[in-house]
Amino acid sequence: MEFTDELIKKGTLARDASFKLASVSTTVKNNALEAIAAALVERADEILAANAADIENAKNNGTKKAMIDRLSLSRERIEGIAEGVRQVKALADPIGEVIKMWRRPNGLEIGQKRVPMGVISIIYEARPNVTADAAALCLKTSNACILRGGSDAINSNKAIAKIMQDAAYSEGIPEGAINIIEDTSRETSVQLMKMNGYIDLLIPRGGKGLIRSVVENATVPVVETAAGNCHMYVDGKCDADMAEKLVINAKVQRPSVCNAIETLLIDREIAGEFVPRIFKALSDNGVEICADEESRALWDGETKPVTDEDYYTEYNDYIIAVKIVDGIDEAIAHINKYNTKHSETIVTEDYSRAQKFLNEVDAAAVYVNASTRFTDGFEFGFGAEIGISTQKMHARGPMGLEALTSIKYIVYGNGQIRE
Amino acid sequence: MEFTDELIKKGTLARDASFKLASVSTTVKNNALEAIAAALVERADEILAANAADIENAKNNGTKKAMIDRLSLSRERIEGIAEGVRQVKALADPIGEVIKMWRRPNGLEIGQKRVPMGVISIIYEARPNVTADAAALCLKTSNACILRGGSDAINSNKAIAKIMQDAAYSEGIPEGAINIIEDTSRETSVQLMKMNGYIDLLIPRGGKGLIRSVVENATVPVVETAAGNCHMYVDGKCDADMAEKLVINAKVQRPSVCNAIETLLIDREIAGEFVPRIFKALSDNGVEICADEESRALWDGETKPVTDEDYYTEYNDYIIAVKIVDGIDEAIAHINKYNTKHSETIVTEDYSRAQKFLNEVDAAAVYVNASTRFTDGFEFGFGAEIGISTQKMHARGPMGLEALTSIKYIVYGNGQIRE
Repeated sequence: MEFTDELIKKGTLARDASFKLASVSTTVKNNALEAIAAALVERADEILAANAADIENAKNNGTKKAMIDRLSLSRERIEGIAEGVRQVKALADPIGEVIKMWRRPNGLEIGQKRVPMGVISIIYEARPNVTADAAALCLKTSNACILRGGSDAINSNKAIAKIMQDAAYSEGIPEGAINIIEDTSRETSVQLMKMNGYIDLLIPRGGKGLIRSVVENATVPVVETAAGNCHMYVDGKCDADMAEKLVINAKVQRPSVCNAIETLLIDREIAGEFVPRIFKALSDNGVEICADEESRALWDGETKPVTDEDYYTEYNDYIIAVKIVDGIDEAIAHINKYNTKHSETIVTEDYSRAQKFLNEVDAAAVYVNASTRFTDGFEFGFGAEIGISTQKMHARGPMGLEALTSIKYIVYGNGQIRE
Repeated sequence: MEFTDELIKKGTLARDASFKLASVSTTVKNNALEAIAAALVERADEILAANAADIENAKNNGTKKAMIDRLSLSRERIEGIAEGVRQVKALADPIGEVIKMWRRPNGLEIGQKRVPMGVISIIYEARPNVTADAAALCLKTSNACILRGGSDAINSNKAIAKIMQDAAYSEGIPEGAINIIEDTSRETSVQLMKMNGYIDLLIPRGGKGLIRSVVENATVPVVETAAGNCHMYVDGKCDADMAEKLVINAKVQRPSVCNAIETLLIDREIAGEFVPRIFKALSDNGVEICADEESRALWDGETKPVTDEDYYTEYNDYIIAVKIVDGIDEAIAHINKYNTKHSETIVTEDYSRAQKFLNEVDAAAVYVNASTRFTDGFEFGFGAEIGISTQKMHARGPMGLEALTSIKYIVYGNGQIRE
């Protein structure tokens, strides 16, 4: 594989820095994070000027308004970014923890110690705040990072990264700890995904197209993040008031995110009373209903027929698919067939069904009597989140600081040889 | 991607079985493992007949004798395989453990529970015993498996798998839990590496060519295993008797394995006395010495000049590369440049250097005053080993049963919604 000069240069810098970072103390890392937070606010004008150039380019390219909103920074937003860096500073440092240690019969003392991954690369889209978030989380966990943001935000990303580098390196963080790829071409991005020997972990953050491209092209280890086709199953033996409240929260509170529900499954046992009630409530909240024939027949309001395609769709919008099922077994089978292994919830007062759902549904987070909207590093109490993993390997569900670490075995001997 | 009918059929069987396996009790799994062990011995004639066909084919293909030895089974070897299955039965079942559980301010109770990966595929070469080992470890951890052994051992592998399937399914293990790919073509193997949605984890076990092919082609999550370019650094402040004993053990006790050392680094501080002594000992043990000019000048016996290429080489043989270094910093820099992140050891009586080595050397296992030969699931006390990971993601070092598991968050609520 051939790599561009920029990739070789920054890959080498990152790898070399990663060896030194492993021994940098928590105090130095925290001082650097504080200096970064201060510098982002002090040098906000540089960021805003770069951001203005990005917005100008976006307008000239006919970019949609919603996209330009996501791209836009203000002094308040920059203060928010700096506050996020300070929150990362305040978290406990996971590096160096000896998770367990034991003695073997031959006297060897073997410990399992938490260490940095080494070099983490993050490929992401629009929002420039990810540059600061990702670099801060990597720094806190003693990882060097190689950031590759979208072309839309390249000027903003470069300005943020430059300020972070200046502040971090002046506090004793080894040079090369923070890197940003300036060439945002697709070809270079694909090369980055193949930098075995330079990159220990690659995390894509963005839409389906990006995730797909990374999974197909990457030869370095990847954590796949967050498509969320989430379900709520309303069981026959539930508190219907609670069920209504949970359906509306999980669908309507913020429909654009990965932990909102997309399909509602209703137990036939209570469909007669629950369908008209929940369809009215959803409709009153502006949700378009795509439902099966059986449930459509139970309500006079407007609905559309649901298709198999709908069941596979992550709407991220005010739309919901609805299906009446013949109890919990059909609900679980439906979920395990159509879900993306993100977040699933059952509403029930039945003990055995609750346990069955928790055990048999295959997803990163399975809930009883709660909204799926809680699948999030902050809501889980991790204090940070680099993304939500939908794979089972390495990290599953919300990824906090620990997901950015590896382990190493340390072995203390006194001359042991193997017989 | 197009898949062969066999892959689709067995992939679907495995995926469906994996959902059911998640709820199979430890008792049922242990009964199945006992039945498998008994059946392997009872039906040994079937395995031996299939193995004879493989050996016949290998001879007709002009296969080397060493390879034929690795392929060959006997009644004793089959009894050894059955004993291995009983050892897996005796291990504690990691599935279902709730690693931790905590309560959030809103009353949600969140638990982190150990669950199966789902479907694990293992691609391996020659030895037919891997078929039984891998299937037993997957079964113990409630994973469905898709085994793809080499073409040389296909008849033996099919016979072993058939006996395991019969025994396991008769004990209540869901059909589809154990699968073997009968088409051993390279094209089918590459397709297998791309079965996202069917395979949750792929583990290659074999030589460099196989590992390379998997890393380059796979789109499913992979744990890369075990190339071992391991080092011993003999520090100036060491017990020279211990150092000699450790060098000889780590190089000579079994040179063909991944945790044997390939390069010896000697502190200049003691080179004058230690080089002649250790070169003689190595030479007496039949080890060929490739050394730098400085050390070669210190001994009259036969040595060859070392090249940079030597430092990158995993000999797996009675050959060692030697370099005199200017203390621990040069030793660590050399190791971090040339190693494969497997196992590294320092011999020293100096406290600070021991700690520095443990902290700064980047490898799965770092030792003080012990032979690298202990990097092994059994020697570490895990009771089993599916391979030794040389990547940092998911599992690092010897992989026991826990490396074949994932986690899931279980969340108990009483109507919580997100504000």
